[in-house]
Amino acid sequence: MITSLTVLESAATACCSPITGGALSAEEASELAARFKAIGDPTRLRLLSLVAAHEGGEACVCDLNEPLDLSQPTVSHHLKILVDAGLLTRTKRGTWSYYALVPGALPMLAETLQV
Amino acid sequence: MITSLTVLESAATACCSPITGGALSAEEASELAARFKAIGDPTRLRLLSLVAAHEGGEACVCDLNEPLDLSQPTVSHHLKILVDAGLLTRTKRGTWSYYALVPGALPMLAETLQV
Repeated sequence: MITSLTVLESAATACCSPITGGALSAEEASELAARFKAIGDPTRLRLLSLVAAHEGGEACVCDLNEPLDLSQPTVSHHLKILVDAGLLTRTKRGTWSYYALVPGALPMLAETLQV
Repeated sequence: MITSLTVLESAATACCSPITGGALSAEEASELAARFKAIGDPTRLRLLSLVAAHEGGEACVCDLNEPLDLSQPTVSHHLKILVDAGLLTRTKRGTWSYYALVPGALPMLAETLQV
């Protein structure tokens, strides 16, 4: 039996004012810092770039551990952090989980860095 | 005697390809992650925004601890991380150190997040 699950297309949620647009509140700084912390790791940056470069903009977890030469549990751990930060979507189809960029999430982070 | 030190206007050094422009190499990912890690902290984001919002785009360390309700050594510790990451310049004049954004550094980071 083939189970078909709908792809969850979560759009990026609005977050934060530009860093240089006036002093950030503690709450804004906290929310924004969590997202930058999620990408403040070489493995997670490489995962984002691998997912984005993958055919159709979606990659199976089973395709990601080999290019990074890491175990699947380690890769899954980093992918979870990126999903929790609102940067990747995760869709389970059959045995495997598939990951894609949340539309608009990286450009929205970029906006906060514009001077 | 007044010692006058020249302001060091370090321009942002070129760094990294866009995350979504093809799989990042380990070296690029490592360099870029270090910069995102530097801003992946609420105190450091607030320091950047306070410096940017300060008159003349430059702030004395002595003006930064009060708005954050943190000790000066703690603030200095976070400022050093931002200087080391190439995001702030530090200029010593008399007793105090003054901090300013490195021109182009935040927009250059923003570029790497554009899809």
